[in-house]
Amino acid sequence: MASSVSSSAAPEKLTVMGAGLVGSLLSLYLARRGHAVHVFERRADPRRAGFQEGRSINLALSDRGWRALEGVGIADDIRRVGIPMTGRIMHDQLGNLTRQPYGQDGQAIYSVNRGHLNRRLLDLAEAQPTVQLRFGQQCLHIDLKQQHLHLLDTATQQEHTEPYTRLFGTDGAFSAVRGALQKTDRYDYSQHYLEYGYKELTIEAGPNGTWQLEKNALHIWPRGQYLMIALPNLDGSFNCTLFFPYEGAESFAALPTPADVTAFFARVFPDAVPLMPALTEEFFAHPTGSLVTIRCYPWKYDDDVLLLGDASHAIVPFYGQGMNAGFEDCSVLNELLDQYGDGAWPTVFTEFQAQRKPNADAMADLALYNFIEMRDRVADPRFLLQKKIEAKIASQFPGRWTPLYSQVTFSHTPYAEAWAAGQRQDAIMARLMPHIQSEADFDQPAVQELIRQEMAVRPSSAS
Amino acid sequence: MASSVSSSAAPEKLTVMGAGLVGSLLSLYLARRGHAVHVFERRADPRRAGFQEGRSINLALSDRGWRALEGVGIADDIRRVGIPMTGRIMHDQLGNLTRQPYGQDGQAIYSVNRGHLNRRLLDLAEAQPTVQLRFGQQCLHIDLKQQHLHLLDTATQQEHTEPYTRLFGTDGAFSAVRGALQKTDRYDYSQHYLEYGYKELTIEAGPNGTWQLEKNALHIWPRGQYLMIALPNLDGSFNCTLFFPYEGAESFAALPTPADVTAFFARVFPDAVPLMPALTEEFFAHPTGSLVTIRCYPWKYDDDVLLLGDASHAIVPFYGQGMNAGFEDCSVLNELLDQYGDGAWPTVFTEFQAQRKPNADAMADLALYNFIEMRDRVADPRFLLQKKIEAKIASQFPGRWTPLYSQVTFSHTPYAEAWAAGQRQDAIMARLMPHIQSEADFDQPAVQELIRQEMAVRPSSAS
Repeated sequence: MASSVSSSAAPEKLTVMGAGLVGSLLSLYLARRGHAVHVFERRADPRRAGFQEGRSINLALSDRGWRALEGVGIADDIRRVGIPMTGRIMHDQLGNLTRQPYGQDGQAIYSVNRGHLNRRLLDLAEAQPTVQLRFGQQCLHIDLKQQHLHLLDTATQQEHTEPYTRLFGTDGAFSAVRGALQKTDRYDYSQHYLEYGYKELTIEAGPNGTWQLEKNALHIWPRGQYLMIALPNLDGSFNCTLFFPYEGAESFAALPTPADVTAFFARVFPDAVPLMPALTEEFFAHPTGSLVTIRCYPWKYDDDVLLLGDASHAIVPFYGQGMNAGFEDCSVLNELLDQYGDGAWPTVFTEFQAQRKPNADAMADLALYNFIEMRDRVADPRFLLQKKIEAKIASQFPGRWTPLYSQVTFSHTPYAEAWAAGQRQDAIMARLMPHIQSEADFDQPAVQELIRQEMAVRPSSAS
Repeated sequence: MASSVSSSAAPEKLTVMGAGLVGSLLSLYLARRGHAVHVFERRADPRRAGFQEGRSINLALSDRGWRALEGVGIADDIRRVGIPMTGRIMHDQLGNLTRQPYGQDGQAIYSVNRGHLNRRLLDLAEAQPTVQLRFGQQCLHIDLKQQHLHLLDTATQQEHTEPYTRLFGTDGAFSAVRGALQKTDRYDYSQHYLEYGYKELTIEAGPNGTWQLEKNALHIWPRGQYLMIALPNLDGSFNCTLFFPYEGAESFAALPTPADVTAFFARVFPDAVPLMPALTEEFFAHPTGSLVTIRCYPWKYDDDVLLLGDASHAIVPFYGQGMNAGFEDCSVLNELLDQYGDGAWPTVFTEFQAQRKPNADAMADLALYNFIEMRDRVADPRFLLQKKIEAKIASQFPGRWTPLYSQVTFSHTPYAEAWAAGQRQDAIMARLMPHIQSEADFDQPAVQELIRQEMAVRPSSAS
């Protein structure tokens, strides 16, 4: 693919700060274009040290992520260790289950293990002769004028300076590269935390590595002001995440003892508790993670520094798009290099941030929007009815109504367009739903007439 | 005043980082309560080094600021070097003048020199036996757990560590203290820049130190998308500030040469140009300042660090409230210490941020709102008519309609309440003004009836 274009400019020595998911994928892309890539990572090599991080263990890979992996030819490899989840299964407080498909037949998001994916990407990057990975390199300071990184080798405790010509900041939500940009004049920046934290817990595998809940689904225990989710692992277990207020009547602060935790879970997640024998132990041993949204601009400094992934747009996890958006950054950058040529960094950087910033902002909004949907609305029969009606409209008007979730998850429509279309659809459904009490009402002539009117007003803008 | 209360708790050693306007006033307040105050300031002593800063030279002191100065007994002293400005004078492109009073007879905001005020506050602070000022102390790092400041003495280039028990961060918009808080978990922070910069220029004094424009006014050249203002100095000159887009057809970027500047000013500020002989020289010699709004939360860390002034709530200058809000922080903190006693720091810090945060947010919004008003709306005859009608309503309903500007500038009503009342007034005026074409229309029976209805619906909420 891209290698045909890389000959348009001389190979360069490029520097990548951060070898997490986005940094390792980016390095692979840049190396395949013929460049020499020096990668510095604060942590130890996860392939040697064992994966140790406070971040979520499971991720949901969807179409944007897959396309980026296909771009470097490793999608099939990863798909073999992913578990397709074709829909949500909601668990109510009595243990009753409700199923909601994510898309059409054959569409799914994939539960993959963050550590596995990161290690695989690092192996592939390292296999490139022009990629050099250096771990345990903490970025202490960046001199943007002189263009050098001031690094601490955490193993030897020696400080050293590394010059760079082109620096890519893929060092995550607490990016040191962005930290340097943030101190330049007229730098817009915000970090905003939810009043919710998260706790990772485990549903154990059943006998012989069987799954004790339906394997091919994302499980949700929506409880209005909070929720728990579970994603399947290959070994039969599920990784659960409780998203829960820090303070209040039902909150982390209100559960100070194992007895409190046991009583609370038995009351609100009764069907899950028997599957979580390590519940109280994990609850107090695992850290409570915080949930931040980061927005900033610009994403570049002059023509020589560019931010990608969480470094420029960390989002809350409720749409499962954090990694997918970061991977899409890599595809988009690669496409721009195809379009303008590898020598045209100034144009590519400028185009990249102009294209991606509105999409990152939209995705941040979507992720916050889906928090409300997942913790609250999916437990509402009216909401589930609305989703069924939307699916019927989509069938009736092929290509003219793509549900928001599908646009975000199963398409490559820019996030900002998807979000705008989703808001128009919400407005239409708000007018329509008062006339609909059951799935059968969809076929009522009066309802059909209303739908025709709505679709006629904005023939192409609803999807 | 407060000294009677300070006996309720043992004097403490307190640390203040930043000896600008808010830091020096705060030190004075704390010292008068009986505490030992160690003040560290990054810059050299402005009383020795001469005042050298990129910040605006003139400030508009209004009631909140005066009250804070009265609290330490120095209001009269400062008032002698302030110039009262009783209203705005708008200059149109033909040189025609329009006057708009700020408040009622006797009400004024005061043009004061930042450097003079800062030096005077430092003199007074230093005269307190328990205040120790140390200049040229750059804060490199703060260890919040160990409670010590890591400082660089800029004169000797020696680094040193200073322990603190209670630290007050009054080190401005780019606060090092806030920088340390910002790295703690769940810290909400944003810095947002306007697409406008500012340039400070001078209208020279006339013969024998006379003022070439009306002395007791704030002059505005509103031009829709940009504006220039001028504040009087004691020596007969005026400090002008041009607020101007960075980019675009009329912008800093569009004026690269002295000839461009001269032509532009001659076209849009023709009455000012003859009074500005150093125009082009100053335009290229003076830096272009940027305009930031900073919001963060919390303002405290545990019970031992508290942010005040621009460190926690830097705002754009268009309401003339930046210093006044910072000074009000000092009065409010002093009142809380009166109320709870000097030993009750945890309660005082918690109450302080709970009270002040919504007011700081409202003031930030007000400052942005007033940018639009000053650059655009004050040039609109309909807007000026509306202001006259509002003044008539205020006279007709004493105590029930205080114009927003007066609430912000000439009252101690919390900013958030003022802003909410101002928005209600705007809504009422939007309904009323279509029925009013001249001042005389105010007395029309139909208009009077409408006003009575509006005032009856919300008898006390409009002011």
